Amino acid sequence: MLRSLAPQNSLANAIHDRLAGVAEVFTQQLTSDLPAVNELCRHVEKYRGKMMRPMLVLASGAAAGGVSSLGRPHLVLAAVVEMIHMATLVHDDVLDEAEVRRGGRTVNSLQGNEAAVMLGDYLISKAFHLCSTIDDPSLNQMLGRVTNTLCEGELLQLAHRGDAALLEGTYFEIVRRKTAVLTGGCCAIGARLSGADAERQLAMQSFGEDLGIAFQIQDDVLDLMGEVGVVGKTVGRDIAKGKLTLPVVIHLASCSPVERAHALAEFARADGSALRDAVVASGSIAQAHKRADAIVERAKRRLTGVAEGEALDLLLAMADATVTRPA
Amino acid sequence: MLRSLAPQNSLANAIHDRLAGVAEVFTQQLTSDLPAVNELCRHVEKYRGKMMRPMLVLASGAAAGGVSSLGRPHLVLAAVVEMIHMATLVHDDVLDEAEVRRGGRTVNSLQGNEAAVMLGDYLISKAFHLCSTIDDPSLNQMLGRVTNTLCEGELLQLAHRGDAALLEGTYFEIVRRKTAVLTGGCCAIGARLSGADAERQLAMQSFGEDLGIAFQIQDDVLDLMGEVGVVGKTVGRDIAKGKLTLPVVIHLASCSPVERAHALAEFARADGSALRDAVVASGSIAQAHKRADAIVERAKRRLTGVAEGEALDLLLAMADATVTRPA
Repeated sequence: MLRSLAPQNSLANAIHDRLAGVAEVFTQQLTSDLPAVNELCRHVEKYRGKMMRPMLVLASGAAAGGVSSLGRPHLVLAAVVEMIHMATLVHDDVLDEAEVRRGGRTVNSLQGNEAAVMLGDYLISKAFHLCSTIDDPSLNQMLGRVTNTLCEGELLQLAHRGDAALLEGTYFEIVRRKTAVLTGGCCAIGARLSGADAERQLAMQSFGEDLGIAFQIQDDVLDLMGEVGVVGKTVGRDIAKGKLTLPVVIHLASCSPVERAHALAEFARADGSALRDAVVASGSIAQAHKRADAIVERAKRRLTGVAEGEALDLLLAMADATVTRPA
Repeated sequence: MLRSLAPQNSLANAIHDRLAGVAEVFTQQLTSDLPAVNELCRHVEKYRGKMMRPMLVLASGAAAGGVSSLGRPHLVLAAVVEMIHMATLVHDDVLDEAEVRRGGRTVNSLQGNEAAVMLGDYLISKAFHLCSTIDDPSLNQMLGRVTNTLCEGELLQLAHRGDAALLEGTYFEIVRRKTAVLTGGCCAIGARLSGADAERQLAMQSFGEDLGIAFQIQDDVLDLMGEVGVVGKTVGRDIAKGKLTLPVVIHLASCSPVERAHALAEFARADGSALRDAVVASGSIAQAHKRADAIVERAKRRLTGVAEGEALDLLLAMADATVTRPA
């Protein structure tokens, strides 16, 4: 993906090569002496897609200290954040009763919710253990803060399930916690491991958080509008599970009382296709894209004075890609 | 509980007092700025019962370095292991579809599986983050190894769900991983924090692991034989969920072919009461108790040269209590 994002960028090639090292750490860590555990781990490896979070760790490290600063700790922490991300996917699929992920069956649909719950726990545990093998306790603290907030975001989202009065501010608070704090953490960790000072770590973190928010908005739009064959995972789950996403929040806030009554009825009976037509007609998809675009522009501005050269080009390309990706 | 175990033991009183400090750390850590998260955390606090694992941390510390060695790190790590334990309870209740825990409704039955899954994740995350606030990276490594093994034990148990051919050796391997490694870790961590050398840490760890195994056998017997009003949680779940427990494993291995055919049919249709009658009649409950008693005796022998005085008396009383408790 990196190479197609920035084909002339030699840093993109260098990071692309290191992602193989990250995948190796990931696989090696998720190898157990128990065949039943291995089988589940091999299945979850298929979820590994774009490796956006490991890329953020590596690209942020390169921005802070150059490509030569990318050492073993970067690969390890990149594998750690990917494990955390995988754990959230596995547990989210239980919550969402999803059946398809990356074009394959989900763990919960194949092996039951029980195996999916425990496999997610195993991924979290492995991630924290792996993080502790790098002799820097502040990394475990950073990771712990990230996952605390991430879980709070998921719990906040659950508390607002079916809440048709969800405000845009609350929507963004949920997204900040459940998605953006991890992508921001990736950038802060990568920069820290390459020797960035606190100010630069914070700037990179803000950049990563913005990317996470833009990414989530795009995810929302794809869940509403996408085809399962293109997106590669179960779509239409948000409305089916009573989750208000940004296009719907915008639609409800801007439409007429009559349209609002219609939309609420469609939301209440989880009628995705009727709601989708109304959301498209009111221009709320376009509005959601506009919000995402503005957040991507803000993200790019955060890189001023923080990244330069090929690292800057790469981070800018990654920022643009969050809102143009088809899946 | 400690005071009733060893009423004349001044160390028991000292540890009892420190448990209030552990509870305070626990509550303080599980306080969020989000009301929805707080509500769930206050509910899970009601699960906090005997605090066996925090007691093991404190008693092992006192055995290694005297009561004066018990400082803030002991309280923090005691809260950490209790959080991990709570997380396993919350996720186990999802897996077991249990409705009652400590005489109250379970999180999953009150708020749904989704909230229970995320609350368990939150507890795990909080535990690792709290552990990392003690400036000793080896503690995070110890904790990570414990939780890795714990999850493997749960996954191994799931892989053998409905497996009527489960061998006693596999049963003990499951129990070692899912239960004993945590209680062993409590003792090793407590001893380590009080300055014990590696050999003494290992002896205390073996003691704690044996206690965990004996505790689990007693749990198995209570699930088969107990009344919900006494045990305080849903009983009969093991057979209902296709889990072979030690009394049933012993029964199947020792009964006649005809009795075995009956027992397998009862297990297959999850008929707990018929199976219970047969297990009692064949003396398999008594055999399970005998196994647990032998493990408790082995645990006590591990304390030779490792603990003395009031600390020894207290640990011996805790060992005995694992197999005499009614719940």
